[in-house]
Amino acid sequence: MSTPVPARTQVAIVGGGPAGLMLSHLLRLRGVDAVVLESRPRERVETRQRAGILEHGTVDALREVGADARMDEIGMPHDGFELRFAGRSVRVDMQELTGRHVMIWAQTEVTKDLIALRLEQGEPLLFDAEVLEVCDVETDSPSVRYRHDGAEHVLHADVVVGADGSYGPSRRAIPEHLVRRFERIYPYSWLGILADVAPSSHELIYARGRTGFALASMRSPSVTRAYIQVPNGTDPASWGDEAIWDELSARFALDDGSFTLARGPISDKSVTPMRSMVTEPMRHGRLFLAGDAAHIVPPTGAKGLNLAVADVRVLAEALGEWFATKDERLVDAYSETALRRVWRASHFSWTMTTMLHVDPDGDPFDEQLALSHLHHIETSESARRALAENYRGLALGDV
Amino acid sequence: MSTPVPARTQVAIVGGGPAGLMLSHLLRLRGVDAVVLESRPRERVETRQRAGILEHGTVDALREVGADARMDEIGMPHDGFELRFAGRSVRVDMQELTGRHVMIWAQTEVTKDLIALRLEQGEPLLFDAEVLEVCDVETDSPSVRYRHDGAEHVLHADVVVGADGSYGPSRRAIPEHLVRRFERIYPYSWLGILADVAPSSHELIYARGRTGFALASMRSPSVTRAYIQVPNGTDPASWGDEAIWDELSARFALDDGSFTLARGPISDKSVTPMRSMVTEPMRHGRLFLAGDAAHIVPPTGAKGLNLAVADVRVLAEALGEWFATKDERLVDAYSETALRRVWRASHFSWTMTTMLHVDPDGDPFDEQLALSHLHHIETSESARRALAENYRGLALGDV
Repeated sequence: MSTPVPARTQVAIVGGGPAGLMLSHLLRLRGVDAVVLESRPRERVETRQRAGILEHGTVDALREVGADARMDEIGMPHDGFELRFAGRSVRVDMQELTGRHVMIWAQTEVTKDLIALRLEQGEPLLFDAEVLEVCDVETDSPSVRYRHDGAEHVLHADVVVGADGSYGPSRRAIPEHLVRRFERIYPYSWLGILADVAPSSHELIYARGRTGFALASMRSPSVTRAYIQVPNGTDPASWGDEAIWDELSARFALDDGSFTLARGPISDKSVTPMRSMVTEPMRHGRLFLAGDAAHIVPPTGAKGLNLAVADVRVLAEALGEWFATKDERLVDAYSETALRRVWRASHFSWTMTTMLHVDPDGDPFDEQLALSHLHHIETSESARRALAENYRGLALGDV
Repeated sequence: MSTPVPARTQVAIVGGGPAGLMLSHLLRLRGVDAVVLESRPRERVETRQRAGILEHGTVDALREVGADARMDEIGMPHDGFELRFAGRSVRVDMQELTGRHVMIWAQTEVTKDLIALRLEQGEPLLFDAEVLEVCDVETDSPSVRYRHDGAEHVLHADVVVGADGSYGPSRRAIPEHLVRRFERIYPYSWLGILADVAPSSHELIYARGRTGFALASMRSPSVTRAYIQVPNGTDPASWGDEAIWDELSARFALDDGSFTLARGPISDKSVTPMRSMVTEPMRHGRLFLAGDAAHIVPPTGAKGLNLAVADVRVLAEALGEWFATKDERLVDAYSETALRRVWRASHFSWTMTTMLHVDPDGDPFDEQLALSHLHHIETSESARRALAENYRGLALGDV
């Protein structure tokens, strides 16, 4: 099924996650050849549980490349979400406030569709291809050295795109002294569960409970996804199922008693630390970084996947222009253009995170600031609209 | 000129700053008698340099009590203000975004007018009256013990209002164990100057310079008021005039070189620490707190005076109703109603403060968050409108 990988291409894409795969499709539509090298086996890429809230811009990109059929069939458009605090609830109606909605469609499924489409088209996508080094990015002929099936290979390209996550090898091709790295480690983590029970609400619920954050989400009409804030270093096994449900119920509780959380068998438990990271610049010579390779956001704002797709939308446009006309303006602007959105999302994610989590190092003043912020969103349409615009995603030109 | 103070009144007001004075006028319009006791001499009250940006609600209150003539003659209505960062400028057009403006009219002048009006009306207002103790607030007949002209007196009342600032005696009448106090000390202060030179801009400029915050304001068409962020504990005398102008110029500088700060003789220098404080509850028995006696905000959002006036507008309504009908609902709701606005203003002031100041304990991530926040205000009309609504002041019922 796999197409032979040539020794030379226009764009060598390191990483076959959603950023790299989406880029390969967007480039193809612009007549640019690309090879995608992914270090993991296909099954691993296709089963990795990640985010599942798509901004309208991400949905647009999936439509553009033709990976929207299953999304439209199974995905769940959401017009709004709920915020809970102090025993009450505020609905943020994105559709009404901004004329746009988001789509609940798991990253795993997006990835599966993008892989299937690429293989169907007979375009080169290689799994189990461990990239050893990205070379010569300061010259006009960069290359990628990788191992596959026990042998070493070299892929020559005009351009290399590093879409290989925050621990991938691409970033190392930028000399350390040229890189600025910004980082924030949050003093809490998320304990996430998957449970075989229908979601208790048809929309997402973000709660600031007295003891911390909780999020009620869904994977499908019969699978609940939920999270609670836990201390850093928490062992998921230290939380019994009943204790998790009790804590979730307490954090989502409404004073009027109108909410009951449905419980069911928990099939998966995991703990995710919360951090933010930004690497600048996102381009060095013929190397361009995209997605997690350049930035990480905490999951509270649901921005990780959407930022990755936004990066490659900007990059595909820029590379398409450059290959077609040799006009360098868009590629030269890529890093700055992408970083504006990255910082917007980082600030939004920080706002959502601090507003909704109980900081173990915080004081009562912090607690009141967060509650007043939530109350403001409850009472001010402008504040609610600004939040909704950030959540459903700003248009490419609006950042 | 001073009217004799009776031994008994309906409302004993401790403190003759803008909160206490405004309350006395609002009560008079509702047929409620009040006595205002102020510990300082009249000259001191009338020369105290404080804030000077009035929300439309504060302007409305001055109109209601008839203290608006000089304000309309000399005060300066401002439709907008400017934010500067990264060498560029964003105008926040309050009038366009919210249909309301603010009024530049110094607190000193407001106080003068409220005093003159009270004395003109022959209503009791006593200066040099040092309040020693607020007594019996848990009974139906509270009183205020005070010293004047070397003798001790007692003023009996139905209700006592503590409008005597954060160091006044009123607060002590609430048992310590019933009080929650929230406080935030910011890690910087403001060095403020008055200079005999026309303001360089007809609107206020809030700047996040590379080395810290700066604010360009005005006292009159010929007097500039300006501030720069300095470390806590700074001695104003340690800053020479030229150094102050140089630093102000650097922080307001625009990349296109289109701004020049006019310099002139500096007539006053002072350093103000930045802190936030909230005391809960704002009522205990027959004692009601208003203004700085209950809460302090940092000056960045220009909310101190406006919050004090908002407090007494709510309180005058509540007491008027209570004296007229004995209906206790509004007085019972006073603390909660006032505190919602207090926390809104505290959160807004915190947002403005952290967005515009360089935190000496902060890291580069904090810096980028602040710049991204400012950039968002620059590019998002919703974000700009939410900011403008908070700045020009939310309507009493909207918080």
